[in-house]
Amino acid sequence: MNTENIKKQILEMEIAALEKWNKGNPDGYLAIYSPDFTYFDPFQEKRLDGFEKIQELYESLRGKGSVDRYEMIDPVVQLSGKTAILTYNLISYAGDDVYKWNCTEVYHLNDSNQWKIVHNHWSLIKPLG
Amino acid sequence: MNTENIKKQILEMEIAALEKWNKGNPDGYLAIYSPDFTYFDPFQEKRLDGFEKIQELYESLRGKGSVDRYEMIDPVVQLSGKTAILTYNLISYAGDDVYKWNCTEVYHLNDSNQWKIVHNHWSLIKPLG
Repeated sequence: MNTENIKKQILEMEIAALEKWNKGNPDGYLAIYSPDFTYFDPFQEKRLDGFEKIQELYESLRGKGSVDRYEMIDPVVQLSGKTAILTYNLISYAGDDVYKWNCTEVYHLNDSNQWKIVHNHWSLIKPLG
Repeated sequence: MNTENIKKQILEMEIAALEKWNKGNPDGYLAIYSPDFTYFDPFQEKRLDGFEKIQELYESLRGKGSVDRYEMIDPVVQLSGKTAILTYNLISYAGDDVYKWNCTEVYHLNDSNQWKIVHNHWSLIKPLG
């Protein structure tokens, strides 16, 4: 597969998982996280390490999210060999609330020739205003 | 070089750049950022793309930082082929202020056999308290 097709595939994987997440369904992301997955978000005191930790967190959030619509801003995939770094800004609209995010997803092509996310970092855009 | 030695090398590169940064000197990081570098921090409205953008930002901050001491918490390097994802939590002490960070650095071994940072994401730990 050529570079542009791989970048397109990564982006499609992310959008599919994100759109499930926006309906409170974490299964899209959980299906593509690797066993050695690491994770940062603005609600954790420290990094989460390993699939079981993120599974536990996401199960506790199942059914709770409801994003009405979103804008994915300037997604870029930095592809190099078996690693694809996807970064984007995300604006999520939930009722009267607006959430503004920085997102880093590091995808890796594993030995079974499947792209999996090995690291994810979510943070708020200008959290202190 | 074996896996453990590469991980050690990545960590040493990061610590060397960070310790310069803590004295207001961005040259350590600027020397190891790639041309296609991408960047998030809590003060930007959106992702910064490309070496020139981060150079401009860092030059504007030159001489302004002064971190007295820091704790790098649980650094982990996820190494796979030519990509090394370094993640850690960082507590920086500057006078009476304490800053708490999540940090992602994605290092890539380039065609000149040099490890360079292709993506960096800094965010605050629990920014909303």
